[in-house]
Amino acid sequence: MAVNGAERLRVVLVSPRNPLNIGAAARAMSNFGFASLRLVNPYDVAFREARSAVKSRYILEHAEVYSSLAPAIADCSLVVGTTAGDKRDLHTPLQRLEAGASQIRQHLSSSGVALLFGSEKFGLSTEDMSHCHWLTRIPTRAAHGSMNLGQAVAICLYELSRSEAAVTERFEAAPPASAEENERFTSLLLELLNRSGYVHDRTSASTELKIRRLVRRLGLRAADSESWFGILRQILWRVKRAPDAILIPDDESRRQL
Amino acid sequence: MAVNGAERLRVVLVSPRNPLNIGAAARAMSNFGFASLRLVNPYDVAFREARSAVKSRYILEHAEVYSSLAPAIADCSLVVGTTAGDKRDLHTPLQRLEAGASQIRQHLSSSGVALLFGSEKFGLSTEDMSHCHWLTRIPTRAAHGSMNLGQAVAICLYELSRSEAAVTERFEAAPPASAEENERFTSLLLELLNRSGYVHDRTSASTELKIRRLVRRLGLRAADSESWFGILRQILWRVKRAPDAILIPDDESRRQL
Repeated sequence: MAVNGAERLRVVLVSPRNPLNIGAAARAMSNFGFASLRLVNPYDVAFREARSAVKSRYILEHAEVYSSLAPAIADCSLVVGTTAGDKRDLHTPLQRLEAGASQIRQHLSSSGVALLFGSEKFGLSTEDMSHCHWLTRIPTRAAHGSMNLGQAVAICLYELSRSEAAVTERFEAAPPASAEENERFTSLLLELLNRSGYVHDRTSASTELKIRRLVRRLGLRAADSESWFGILRQILWRVKRAPDAILIPDDESRRQL
Repeated sequence: MAVNGAERLRVVLVSPRNPLNIGAAARAMSNFGFASLRLVNPYDVAFREARSAVKSRYILEHAEVYSSLAPAIADCSLVVGTTAGDKRDLHTPLQRLEAGASQIRQHLSSSGVALLFGSEKFGLSTEDMSHCHWLTRIPTRAAHGSMNLGQAVAICLYELSRSEAAVTERFEAAPPASAEENERFTSLLLELLNRSGYVHDRTSASTELKIRRLVRRLGLRAADSESWFGILRQILWRVKRAPDAILIPDDESRRQL
């Protein structure tokens, strides 16, 4: 699950204002197996007391604090800034997170990467961005591009941890019932419908075909078929014990088959 | 950017406790272009006052409140629950978000999908899960699987909005400098090194080759080459004006070439 070289990623929050967001960033880091958090000029120096999940407390405790950006990224050979902007005329190359993350992952396998997040209110400054090799952008819609800081961190780390292979990894399809099981279901249901007066003698042949098709479309699963047989047998047993009554077939529902 | 059928997705928060998380969910929905939020038994009925970005306020204002799950998902033909659990013995099929999202996207193109998130503390109950066709799991690490609610919503909606095509969509590689530009850079640098006493007469031939290779490895970009020529010419101009001095070549740095 863990990203190869996860220990080489530095999550760098530049001038974060709200300790809750620092706590949220730490929690997401713990969720995805990243541990190195660096803070540049946090507004609230008491951030270590920020509410965060118990399991991510160690990340806050070991967070490193810097008074400027350069030393916070000094040991990284790739520096990537995040931005909500969609302007192509920025001085630094910009790419969507999907492409950016794949490059970061590649880089992490051998050397350090700093992933920068700006303050809640202003994002990264132009000066912060001048330290970046390139910028990346979460593909939010243009009309509301700016994300909550904790959510932005979570999405970036998720994208780094995401597995391309998993996309096509369907859960094992449950084996469908066999023709014999489907037919047994059909027979039980037909007997029940007969006993219930749903099936007329004059229409029984065509109704049988309709019921058979209806059952096949259910997509009965092999593992469930015994349960269904039990259910139908139980109802049948009850119907057989019921005193005879004048049964009024419901033509409407039969036509809809 | 918007997901095809985004208006058919219902984000359903079951028994959410913290209005801040409801606000965060709404913000992420706005970021990714989803609008239909449903709340089942929210703990705090004043959730509409929750702090959220101004741009996502309309989502909170239109959120629908239900007292039980069934009516909140009645109009959906696919119901998917989210879980932090990794247990394969659940009664409901479970798959990773990457695979799940691709199925949800497919379904959304024609019909309604409910995406369920449980309470912050307990997640979805077994009863809630019995309403689900299947469950999906964000690939967090086993040791700390449980995510913050607002972050989990953000990641799920991001995965739905994510573009497979974008993964390989590199930003247009900046055109590299031509051989002529690289050679002009080399000549200017060599002249500068000569004037600075860095190049000895007796080593100048081999040094020239080293410098040429060094420049090629820089990966000079075509768009930047004029700036570099200007920089080198300016330094050269300054060096030419400098009074002759006894220059001590730095053998160490030359050897490292």
